[in-house]
Amino acid sequence: MRTIETCLTPELIHQHELQDKIIVVVDIFRATSCIVTGLGEGVAAIYPVSTVEACKAFGAKGMIMAGERGGIKVEGFDLGNSPFEYMNPELKGKEVSISTTNGTLALEKSKQADEILVGAFLNLSTTIDYLKSSSKSVLVHCAGWKGTPNLEDTLYAGALIHKLNEQLAPEGDAAKLARDFYRLHQSDTAAAAKESGHAHRLAKFGVTKDQDFCLEEDEYNILVKLEGKKLIKS
Amino acid sequence: MRTIETCLTPELIHQHELQDKIIVVVDIFRATSCIVTGLGEGVAAIYPVSTVEACKAFGAKGMIMAGERGGIKVEGFDLGNSPFEYMNPELKGKEVSISTTNGTLALEKSKQADEILVGAFLNLSTTIDYLKSSSKSVLVHCAGWKGTPNLEDTLYAGALIHKLNEQLAPEGDAAKLARDFYRLHQSDTAAAAKESGHAHRLAKFGVTKDQDFCLEEDEYNILVKLEGKKLIKS
Repeated sequence: MRTIETCLTPELIHQHELQDKIIVVVDIFRATSCIVTGLGEGVAAIYPVSTVEACKAFGAKGMIMAGERGGIKVEGFDLGNSPFEYMNPELKGKEVSISTTNGTLALEKSKQADEILVGAFLNLSTTIDYLKSSSKSVLVHCAGWKGTPNLEDTLYAGALIHKLNEQLAPEGDAAKLARDFYRLHQSDTAAAAKESGHAHRLAKFGVTKDQDFCLEEDEYNILVKLEGKKLIKS
Repeated sequence: MRTIETCLTPELIHQHELQDKIIVVVDIFRATSCIVTGLGEGVAAIYPVSTVEACKAFGAKGMIMAGERGGIKVEGFDLGNSPFEYMNPELKGKEVSISTTNGTLALEKSKQADEILVGAFLNLSTTIDYLKSSSKSVLVHCAGWKGTPNLEDTLYAGALIHKLNEQLAPEGDAAKLARDFYRLHQSDTAAAAKESGHAHRLAKFGVTKDQDFCLEEDEYNILVKLEGKKLIKS
């Protein structure tokens, strides 16, 4: 039987074998939710990069620059890290370069995988359907918060594991923890995710409607995949 | 309000501030369960060491040598890692040196703390009473399995956090994950812990009665504390 693992933070990714697997990278608040929204709203491609400088280098070539550090938009950038910014019709067909605190690091550390997907609640069912149809084992790589596990990404990992129960066997204790966290809270996932430290942090910045949107399921019926250096809808 | 954190594996301990805190080190299967059993049954003191060699050095001075690697007793050692071995009346009043795969590493990495306790379900209530009476914040340091989180130690962390709910506020998302994992399974903690990878591994070696015993609550009404280099009943 195929398996599904969870890595609760990029700091533990060396504990996992990545080769021949599909990795689903998740950073619910808010990088991967932004990426799904952007591509769902018509952005042509999104280039994830690790540093602000790399983002600026793409910007110098005419690309839209997006990113945050510590939850706040990088000075001089076109977009911060709110999914609503990605709904601007002017972005349709454009290319965006993005660098965020945790999300792009998790993508960077997933490079050895066979296939890399970006997941969010916003495209949950499409991602699940794709994973059902694949023949590979899966690893859900949670971006976490500055190296520590977080509730919202763990909840998403748990949702995948729970909903893929018949196709994929949970492998490792972290996968079972995530699954059980989702099972305990499945009747109100939003309430559970909003208990996270980062949700509280964002609320202090006055950011609250983003959380609600990031926890909506299936706003977009798209699969998001890394092809070479760019994330595209596929 | 005082806080209670959880570190799910020693690989993430650098994410936590240890100073001025009480750290409770836990390795349910089986190091800290053995330590509590040994001291509860009358062993005078237990010296945790990182390496087999350090254990042998103590052994050369006449100390009882205890330890496992990968779940199996080290060749030539007096004791392995089963709590039942610690019930031998001949050990009363003796000193033991112990080295295990995960448990002693977690102890080693806790050194900067103000106070270090060793916890297990076997002395749950006494540890909780002590933490209630203290004025310090608490960190539960889970030994995990070879750097990854495990179910049984997370469950213990969750039990402490849940039962100290009125005295200590959970700090960080890992603490909330652990608390919720315990809450989901509190009616049958043994079943939840036996789902762990290490429980399955031990069962493959034919070790099953150890798990049952390690999940018993309050077999011993002792507090176990690190004083200098030795663990003693206090």
